[in-house]
Amino acid sequence: MLTSIITIGDELLIGQTIDTNSAWMAQRLNDMGIWVHRRVAIGDKREDILSALRQESSVSQIVLITGGLGPTADDITKPILCEYFNTQLVQNEEALKNVLHIFESRGLPILERNIEQSMVPESAIIIQNDWGTAPGMWFEKEGVIYVSMPGVPYEMQGVMTSYVLPQLEKHFKTPAVMHQTVVTSGMGESFVAERLVAFEASLPPHFSLAYLPSYSLLKLRLSAFGSEKLEIAAEMSTLFHELKALVEDITVSDQDIPIAQVIGQLLHEKGKTVGTAESCTGGLISSQITSISGSSAYYKGSVVTYANEMKVRLLGVNPATLKAYGAVSEETVVEMVTGALKILETDYAIAVTGIMGPDGGTPEKPVGTVWIAVADANTIITKKHHLRYDRERNTNMAAVYAMNELRKLILQ
Amino acid sequence: MLTSIITIGDELLIGQTIDTNSAWMAQRLNDMGIWVHRRVAIGDKREDILSALRQESSVSQIVLITGGLGPTADDITKPILCEYFNTQLVQNEEALKNVLHIFESRGLPILERNIEQSMVPESAIIIQNDWGTAPGMWFEKEGVIYVSMPGVPYEMQGVMTSYVLPQLEKHFKTPAVMHQTVVTSGMGESFVAERLVAFEASLPPHFSLAYLPSYSLLKLRLSAFGSEKLEIAAEMSTLFHELKALVEDITVSDQDIPIAQVIGQLLHEKGKTVGTAESCTGGLISSQITSISGSSAYYKGSVVTYANEMKVRLLGVNPATLKAYGAVSEETVVEMVTGALKILETDYAIAVTGIMGPDGGTPEKPVGTVWIAVADANTIITKKHHLRYDRERNTNMAAVYAMNELRKLILQ
Repeated sequence: MLTSIITIGDELLIGQTIDTNSAWMAQRLNDMGIWVHRRVAIGDKREDILSALRQESSVSQIVLITGGLGPTADDITKPILCEYFNTQLVQNEEALKNVLHIFESRGLPILERNIEQSMVPESAIIIQNDWGTAPGMWFEKEGVIYVSMPGVPYEMQGVMTSYVLPQLEKHFKTPAVMHQTVVTSGMGESFVAERLVAFEASLPPHFSLAYLPSYSLLKLRLSAFGSEKLEIAAEMSTLFHELKALVEDITVSDQDIPIAQVIGQLLHEKGKTVGTAESCTGGLISSQITSISGSSAYYKGSVVTYANEMKVRLLGVNPATLKAYGAVSEETVVEMVTGALKILETDYAIAVTGIMGPDGGTPEKPVGTVWIAVADANTIITKKHHLRYDRERNTNMAAVYAMNELRKLILQ
Repeated sequence: MLTSIITIGDELLIGQTIDTNSAWMAQRLNDMGIWVHRRVAIGDKREDILSALRQESSVSQIVLITGGLGPTADDITKPILCEYFNTQLVQNEEALKNVLHIFESRGLPILERNIEQSMVPESAIIIQNDWGTAPGMWFEKEGVIYVSMPGVPYEMQGVMTSYVLPQLEKHFKTPAVMHQTVVTSGMGESFVAERLVAFEASLPPHFSLAYLPSYSLLKLRLSAFGSEKLEIAAEMSTLFHELKALVEDITVSDQDIPIAQVIGQLLHEKGKTVGTAESCTGGLISSQITSISGSSAYYKGSVVTYANEMKVRLLGVNPATLKAYGAVSEETVVEMVTGALKILETDYAIAVTGIMGPDGGTPEKPVGTVWIAVADANTIITKKHHLRYDRERNTNMAAVYAMNELRKLILQ
């Protein structure tokens, strides 16, 4: 079952918006055994939209379209869908009620252009959008299913979850697809691949292995396609077990979850707590830890000490240490992590101090120098890294390195 | 000058990776007047790659390809490029030197598969990759330029910046393209559009206006295309001035920059400092403020007080206040913001407390309830919001709302 995703909107083509919709849709479809084989982004242009509809419907049985349905003049999808499906816009009662309801409940006056959002192509099945004013639209033409959805992520997700995915499941007997991922750290892609040469060669033809570097981690994704879910599940179980054994020494997690969630699970299991003392990462580690729902069980708080005076005032770092060794030093990061344990009263603490760039480097401490410390009541472990990338990437890598050190300490 | 971007890799199609490369490339190309009219993502599959190359080269003069060049077996792009361009793999001296140099400088042993990365299609112009082992490759065929680049973002960016963009500029007399964006807040898309009806109608045909909602903000992007840079620059200046005047009361910034950068510029100008006391946003505001290079001039530090005990211990919130009104209340957020001003010793402070979901809501304080406070020595402003989305979106919206309140306070 082949699917194309078409995203419409100039903002995607001039790089003003990053397309997160396609990844979300692909994940959900994949879980159902529907394979997205092409994703196409095009602008708000009649001919480009028409030609994408023609092209994708010639290679896919399902064409999912997002974007271009808003209340403003740059959204031109609906008339073009009418042209393509040879139909016309009519007012839809349900969609109108929905628009009126949304404006009423938000206490906003309603405009002509909002009411126009309830005009829909006559030949479409209308999908209620409980999250916004533009309804979804389901078309069928010459054996191909087309669904047009709003581009706002949570609206698209609502329409997909409430209607599109269940309907597709009903329509198609989909093949079985499975993915399992093991996340590793500490060994380069080539070296891991070298270790897995025999394993890869032994894989049956309906299995494949992919290498996905992600900041300082490397994900190994084992995928299987087959007609019988139970059959490939059994094979997957055996082969994934084999894969895990081969990379046991470098494994971070045997689930494809963020490192913040990995340490969250460990802390939760052990009933322990963690806090952070962040300088160069500026709150990113804290933000990643708290992005996990349920983190309040093991996460109490943090201090972000960007300025030296804050390291002294909030964490009790000795001014003499800062003077003698500088803010980016093993001595300082040790005092930061012990200070964090003390003032946050947590079982574990993470501290990070470094120079993320583009400015602030010196010959002895170039941009990218980062000291990380993790500690509990008995142990302090420090690590120094030299990161070679831009500010954003350096900061994200430092956060991953730091959380991975904590993971290792918890498991000690 | 029409361009297609082809991204290769199953990880994009199963939704494991979000494509940030395309947005980066599109922005840079656009700045040069090169229009990306199609972006296509396909998997690691011979036929799909070949058909995308054929299809995109029939509608574009430039085809930029990323991904599929790593040292592992799932990367199959190079042999397919040889097939498409009717050439063969040969060893490239420069590329080999680069691979050897990278492994040597990192102190790693080199593998056969790494050396193979210096094998390149004979007919290609080889682009040195100073950031990794896979070189870029430039092909020309029947009037179309093709460039194949690594998929790792910073490697792609290096290859684009050092070679591809300058070469494209030499090759083509590109048309002039300009975008200017004004960021607004506090008024819905439809209402802004209503206000701008006459302005939009008056735009010359080579100008267009787009509406881009982004969390609680709305960006209005004015675009112009023309043959003479100076000519459209003059027109743009007049029209953008007109647009700005029409939305002056709701303007956040007349540049397309993050709100963290807007407040950073204001603080920098005024020589003032800010700190944050974050509960439900978990460090996100701090992380966004410090993501701006140069933020150390106005940002000193923050406390993240996820647990109530931390609000008491680190910020001096009165336990009686928490008991009487709860952690998510105006009373608590006021004590948090005054506590932050005091302990961080900053000119301004932001405090946020709320319930981000999916759990933790009550009938009186449902999921999405957020209290925000901003303050300086003389003024405290509080705002309550009811956010209706998922955890990630609620958190991001709360961060934007809070920074926007600070912006307004600074400008008072």
